[in-house]
Amino acid sequence: MNRTKLFSLALLAGASTLAAPVSAGEGMFTPDQLPDIAAQLREAGLEMDPDQLADLTGFPMGAVVSLGGCSASFVSPQGLVVTNHHCARGSVQYNSTAENNYLENGFLARTLGEELPAAPGSRVYITTEVTDVTQRVREGTEGLAPQERYDTVEQRRKDITAECESEVGYRCQVASFFGGAQYKLIKSLEVRDVRIVYAPADSIGKYGGDIDNWMWPRHTGDFAFYRAYVAPDGSAADYSEDNVPYQPEHHLQVSAGGLDEGDFVMVAGYPGSTSRYTLLAEVENTFNWTYPTFQGLLTNWIATIEEAAPEGSDARVRYESRLAGLNNFEKNLRGQIEGARRVGLVDRRREREEALAAWIAADSSRANYGTAIAALAELSQESAQAARTSFWYGNATRPALLGAAQRLYRLSHERQLPDAERQPGYQDRDMTFFRQGLQALDRRYDPAVDMAEWQLFLAGYLQQPAEERVAVFDEALGLTADTSADDLPTILARYYEGTTLGDTDTRLALLDASTAELEASDDPFMQLAVALYDYERMLEAQGEERAGRSLALRPLYMEAITQWQQENGQLAYPDANSTLRITFGNVMGGSPFDGMEYLPFTTLEGIAAKDTGEEPFNSPERQLELIEAQAYGEYELESIGSVPVNFLSDLDVTGGNSGSATLNANGELVGLLFDGTFESVNSDWDFDPRTTRSIHVDSRYMLWVMDNVDGADALIAEMDVVE
Amino acid sequence: MNRTKLFSLALLAGASTLAAPVSAGEGMFTPDQLPDIAAQLREAGLEMDPDQLADLTGFPMGAVVSLGGCSASFVSPQGLVVTNHHCARGSVQYNSTAENNYLENGFLARTLGEELPAAPGSRVYITTEVTDVTQRVREGTEGLAPQERYDTVEQRRKDITAECESEVGYRCQVASFFGGAQYKLIKSLEVRDVRIVYAPADSIGKYGGDIDNWMWPRHTGDFAFYRAYVAPDGSAADYSEDNVPYQPEHHLQVSAGGLDEGDFVMVAGYPGSTSRYTLLAEVENTFNWTYPTFQGLLTNWIATIEEAAPEGSDARVRYESRLAGLNNFEKNLRGQIEGARRVGLVDRRREREEALAAWIAADSSRANYGTAIAALAELSQESAQAARTSFWYGNATRPALLGAAQRLYRLSHERQLPDAERQPGYQDRDMTFFRQGLQALDRRYDPAVDMAEWQLFLAGYLQQPAEERVAVFDEALGLTADTSADDLPTILARYYEGTTLGDTDTRLALLDASTAELEASDDPFMQLAVALYDYERMLEAQGEERAGRSLALRPLYMEAITQWQQENGQLAYPDANSTLRITFGNVMGGSPFDGMEYLPFTTLEGIAAKDTGEEPFNSPERQLELIEAQAYGEYELESIGSVPVNFLSDLDVTGGNSGSATLNANGELVGLLFDGTFESVNSDWDFDPRTTRSIHVDSRYMLWVMDNVDGADALIAEMDVVE
Repeated sequence: MNRTKLFSLALLAGASTLAAPVSAGEGMFTPDQLPDIAAQLREAGLEMDPDQLADLTGFPMGAVVSLGGCSASFVSPQGLVVTNHHCARGSVQYNSTAENNYLENGFLARTLGEELPAAPGSRVYITTEVTDVTQRVREGTEGLAPQERYDTVEQRRKDITAECESEVGYRCQVASFFGGAQYKLIKSLEVRDVRIVYAPADSIGKYGGDIDNWMWPRHTGDFAFYRAYVAPDGSAADYSEDNVPYQPEHHLQVSAGGLDEGDFVMVAGYPGSTSRYTLLAEVENTFNWTYPTFQGLLTNWIATIEEAAPEGSDARVRYESRLAGLNNFEKNLRGQIEGARRVGLVDRRREREEALAAWIAADSSRANYGTAIAALAELSQESAQAARTSFWYGNATRPALLGAAQRLYRLSHERQLPDAERQPGYQDRDMTFFRQGLQALDRRYDPAVDMAEWQLFLAGYLQQPAEERVAVFDEALGLTADTSADDLPTILARYYEGTTLGDTDTRLALLDASTAELEASDDPFMQLAVALYDYERMLEAQGEERAGRSLALRPLYMEAITQWQQENGQLAYPDANSTLRITFGNVMGGSPFDGMEYLPFTTLEGIAAKDTGEEPFNSPERQLELIEAQAYGEYELESIGSVPVNFLSDLDVTGGNSGSATLNANGELVGLLFDGTFESVNSDWDFDPRTTRSIHVDSRYMLWVMDNVDGADALIAEMDVVE
Repeated sequence: MNRTKLFSLALLAGASTLAAPVSAGEGMFTPDQLPDIAAQLREAGLEMDPDQLADLTGFPMGAVVSLGGCSASFVSPQGLVVTNHHCARGSVQYNSTAENNYLENGFLARTLGEELPAAPGSRVYITTEVTDVTQRVREGTEGLAPQERYDTVEQRRKDITAECESEVGYRCQVASFFGGAQYKLIKSLEVRDVRIVYAPADSIGKYGGDIDNWMWPRHTGDFAFYRAYVAPDGSAADYSEDNVPYQPEHHLQVSAGGLDEGDFVMVAGYPGSTSRYTLLAEVENTFNWTYPTFQGLLTNWIATIEEAAPEGSDARVRYESRLAGLNNFEKNLRGQIEGARRVGLVDRRREREEALAAWIAADSSRANYGTAIAALAELSQESAQAARTSFWYGNATRPALLGAAQRLYRLSHERQLPDAERQPGYQDRDMTFFRQGLQALDRRYDPAVDMAEWQLFLAGYLQQPAEERVAVFDEALGLTADTSADDLPTILARYYEGTTLGDTDTRLALLDASTAELEASDDPFMQLAVALYDYERMLEAQGEERAGRSLALRPLYMEAITQWQQENGQLAYPDANSTLRITFGNVMGGSPFDGMEYLPFTTLEGIAAKDTGEEPFNSPERQLELIEAQAYGEYELESIGSVPVNFLSDLDVTGGNSGSATLNANGELVGLLFDGTFESVNSDWDFDPRTTRSIHVDSRYMLWVMDNVDGADALIAEMDVVE
């Protein structure tokens, strides 16, 4: 399909029906919305029955799973799961030793017996049921006071979750849609025995590393394979040698024929979070204050760690992953800020609110919307102010051991309540992750680096005006109006000299400590945690009170905007919330900025051209030889004269979608979604069809690597590879 | 013209005739070569008679001039000259004051009387005659010893130059082509009264600044206007109120109709220097050693200046332009190194030499070529070794006042010779520039920064092995095998404390000092200059001896490679040497790397998209408003739906070409060449048609700015603007 045709098709779709998405590519639809846009799906090129996509336990959605934070899918009847390399890399690292460095050499199990346990906490969640529980959650909450409303809703969500999880082996969640207008109970089988099957070497799976992260052109073989195991009776179970591969009802076929420019694609996965319906006040505060401020802080933060943990030091090893994360975050914020400027985000949001207000004013029966939106805008302003006030306090309480102490002390309080009434994160169902978190801390902690970070944050805190300082915090630390950054080393030294929380066993032992025991502790971090407890609870209560108000107002706002959009021929979709969504569109490049064009595919030759022999551009020698020999085999895409490595589409995705299967018009796997371009990161706030492009690894490159570079023939044979 | 057609046309050109250039776009042809490639020019789209381009005093070449370092052209019968903003910016800066900041506000003379003198030393050179003087320069030099051969050739070049310059008002030059196989005397009228007429503000003329330098997409209004003035009798004269505008015999018409993708374009200008015929040894040494070493040094050098001259300091102002130059250089070297890797430069050069050797071996009558090339390769190796040895010594003698002292002391020696026998640069004809150079020094000098730089260079020098140290330099500075970088501040301090050369009047007074007087000086920098004199003359003599050998060998090598290329259907062209050249090709984007495409044009909208309001992305408000209003007027290019700002072509250009008129098929000015893309900088060594793209400012943008933003109506009226 050429571009002219695509363009007219988009025009047509916009004109022909009420239910068109806002723009081509835009829309993270819940599966039950798909029948409403059946015509658009067919026009975009879908050849399956759209209704079929709404069936969560049928084909193909039954093959789509969540890893918790990443998406994935079954590709064999024996529980073989394909996802991104970057989603499975922790498990490769977990199994690596100096002798068997799987990150460097890749890992391939030749038999089931060679498959290795994934990193602790690895899960495969298979959604089995989605039930609307709106009525039960919301009933009678309108008349309550905000805090009571919040508590009631939260308690009901916990109760429904607990009931659902009474069936052993399942994990349940009550997700909120459209700002609390709708609640759905999502029930998933929780596979706890997950094993790593195959991951190419970092020099393929992480090719381009942080430099190419969010960038096009891209040449990353970002794919890896897990296998889900269950007890012989088919129930979820902890790791055991007796376990057997899980047999999914459905799995995806893998296409060796692949795609070309303009072809239909869709992605089913678990996008984490978007902010497309936030009000102007929040957008303004975020882009005019929070993001620029935080981006500046991140730059200093990175420099502080790099100085305190010099390259080659033991400390640097512990902070490598945090540094990568902070750099990633900084780049993301930069992209967000640039993107907001490029699309004129603040102005566009203002215009949308004005247009919505005009629509409301045009009909007196919509007056209640106007009242609700005015109150919500005020609330939004209030929340923005609160976020701003607590920005530096929040940073100033980042030290790792303070965090551990705060969680432990909170746990001692929560444990006094019946399990069902505890805060999420402190219930019995959370304790495995809670313990793992406390345990993992010591691999990512160095007192000197932690103290350098704390000094940086406190220096920022000290510069704030008196009314934004927190008295109880100042008192606990001994900070006065005269304290300067120079005084901090002396003030902070006693924390690191006096604490024993740096010791893992000590921390873990405190899991069972009572509130009184912790209050009697002479550990300085624990004492600080105790001192701050009431203030933090107050902040939390204020937040809950605002959330309670929002629960009454936001559903009305969402109702108004949904109705307004529908009258304008757009089908509103809820903001992402880590639940299963489908987005569809087409393979396409695009012009991210004037004078430049992204081509839709990259080629094997691009790998060789980028290669420097040094990480992250250090392709395996064997791959370079095959490229030099133009050994494309059956995986060549004629229109580009090579094997396609990565491709672009106009799909609407965000973090959490990583690892999602990219499906063609027949529901066959043609690639894996793994990233968006730098110009796309702002789409979380405002989808711009001109600049939003998602990045996929092509199934032909996956198969080419498996076939020719890594010799993963047995896996190819296990999958249903189709032309 | 679409790309398919272009491609087949290029194939055709390659197949149909012996005299095709090596590849589409490649070739910096001398005007007299153009009749030889008439067929190609016509096929590429030229609609004029190719023979007409060979006539230097006819149309259009008679309108093309040199500014010395930049190119330019006449665009009105009243001596109006158009060139790049960056070529005229020094004159804008020279006339700027705190009250009248023309850099910030732009400069426009509404009448002839408002035109201001260009910066001292500004010239317009109008070539009037080119004569082949090969016979006279080379006759009888074959049998001489190398040093004698060098001296004879140089003396003859000086004599011919002097004869030619006996006609008052002319500047002459004997240029060497094809490595000394050919010499041409170039005679130019030297216009000394040059005035600045119009330059848009930096926020248009330097839009994108150093960040966008060498980058695409580009949005720079890199154009400005001078006017040439002569005495009332038409002869060249110094500035005088009585002078009148020079009336050129020819001037270019300016096209408001412009170009579209695929259209024929050519550029006539004065490219500085290329290295397309260097031998393998030099290429290897340059790319494996010199460039990487120098790039590393540049990085430290930049950091040293930035530290010694902190932002906002008076010293920083003095070093701003050096910093820009060093950053520019560093970026260029990075591009060269990356480019060489990308195209496989070293391997390609090796292959070319092997292929040439095979061609020579195939016919015994070519044996003398083989002998010459073997000797030249050895000489090339020797030169590379010498360059390497003197690299750190060369850097260690960079201090500004040492350089001034060395030039002054040398002048005292040279002045003892008859003018005709002096070294170029020390003859009477050079004294204006010599004095200006000494004078300008104090605006770019700060002792603390200079000393910090010297320390950096010396620290590098001290790290070299003993055999690469220079005894006389060590002795003069008191450096021993035990001297470490820590000792340097003490050693160097006395130079800066003891010198008086930092004072302009003192320096200028020494212009007339005798050798004996300078030798008696107690200025430490002068003493060092005296101490190093004999060693430097020895280095120079060694260089001349090698050059003398090269004069006998390189013409044979060039004869061989020219003949071989011709047998392969390619017309050899000489390396650039700052003489008039013509290159032709087409408007085209291109894929500089996998997955990415440069579009051939940028648009007004791209300016708005890049604009941050902060330098160098701070477009004038008026321009942004016009863009917002889509006020394209008659300057719109329909295929892009906007006014084209900059465009790309596949022309073969290098530094010195800046400011050249870009001509269409009828010889009308459609833009100005001002840069090449980052992927092109390596083309100085090896032209790669896939990645070499030159960047032009479009005449439609020039006219749009003049018409709508700056109100330069009178200038538009003065020019011949055609559709």
